[in-house]
Amino acid sequence: MATLLHIDASARLTRSHTRTLSKRFVEAWLAQRPGDRVIVRDVGAQAPTPVSHDWIAAAFTQPERRSAAMHEVLRESDALVDELESADIIVAGVPMYNFGMPAPMKAYIDNIVRVGRTFGFDRSRSGDPYWPLLQGKRLVTLSARGDYGYEPGQRIAQMNHVEPHLRTAFGYIGITEVQSLAVEYDEFADERVRQSLQQAGNAAERLAIEIANAFE
Amino acid sequence: MATLLHIDASARLTRSHTRTLSKRFVEAWLAQRPGDRVIVRDVGAQAPTPVSHDWIAAAFTQPERRSAAMHEVLRESDALVDELESADIIVAGVPMYNFGMPAPMKAYIDNIVRVGRTFGFDRSRSGDPYWPLLQGKRLVTLSARGDYGYEPGQRIAQMNHVEPHLRTAFGYIGITEVQSLAVEYDEFADERVRQSLQQAGNAAERLAIEIANAFE
Repeated sequence: MATLLHIDASARLTRSHTRTLSKRFVEAWLAQRPGDRVIVRDVGAQAPTPVSHDWIAAAFTQPERRSAAMHEVLRESDALVDELESADIIVAGVPMYNFGMPAPMKAYIDNIVRVGRTFGFDRSRSGDPYWPLLQGKRLVTLSARGDYGYEPGQRIAQMNHVEPHLRTAFGYIGITEVQSLAVEYDEFADERVRQSLQQAGNAAERLAIEIANAFE
Repeated sequence: MATLLHIDASARLTRSHTRTLSKRFVEAWLAQRPGDRVIVRDVGAQAPTPVSHDWIAAAFTQPERRSAAMHEVLRESDALVDELESADIIVAGVPMYNFGMPAPMKAYIDNIVRVGRTFGFDRSRSGDPYWPLLQGKRLVTLSARGDYGYEPGQRIAQMNHVEPHLRTAFGYIGITEVQSLAVEYDEFADERVRQSLQQAGNAAERLAIEIANAFE
């Protein structure tokens, strides 16, 4: 059995391109492998708590030395990391808002990049003092953008802080197998966005089928 | 009189390098121009509400057609935009968390990039359907990073989604005069971070004095 972690980060609960794409991906997956487990983590509907002063202090305290209050402040992060650890495939619908991911998706990342759980840290080590702790997982990002030309090598690629940021942050904890699709042209509300959505939706389904069939 | 908008985004309320830098900048400014006004917006201590489904619907409704509930959902954003509009200089302490800005800083940006207030939008326009509405403002970003080599042209510049993202987002609304300073090496906790902090702190003071003396 595979476990899919289905993340949605769009603030739009209806008429969301990224929710349409992630839904199509998951449905196409389950059509191939109906017995698989899907965990839904809707950070667009319910934003994770941003990490705080106390969160940082607790995370950098050895687990056996944490007070009850420290365990409490990490409880939400623990649950998010447990979910992520249990997942084989993470499919994340993450629209571009103002050139980056929505704030709740960043709050999610800040909660799952956890010392001692998803990355190791040791200052006495030679070279980089940190290393990834996750392995064998795969990430699929499904995005949507108002403008167009944000793909690598295109017109305004350097203004895209969604996929490059997601790849860097997930790569840091060991999730380095990443595939990405996106809808563009949303702000023009013309034939181009309809075509882009149709193409990305079909590609999301094909990708789900391909990964599902290759699984294990 | 000049108005400074002093933003802090660090989750750390004490022992924060970015708070140290922003404090030194503001103090150096006020030593030059004691009569100026400083607005403090501490998004690290109090995160702005992430934009929601209802927020987006309200923002894209013409002001005169908004319901009382729509005005209410935009109230926090209105206050943040009012503050930003009143500012001549924005000095923002924004640490790097997991290669990007902290989630509350992104929530701030998503609240101040407001159609009809900080950018214009018109689909019938030829070329880009949006344009910036702010002008004559200046942004100073003060950051801190665990690792080193994130400056343009350096070792891991492509992993930096703080300054490039801030410049793009603030540039979109018309704030294109941007200067940036950062502390590096924090995770090594050795002589290098102490030197980096000292240099960046001195540079922040010099920058404050230079901008303050050139103002108006």
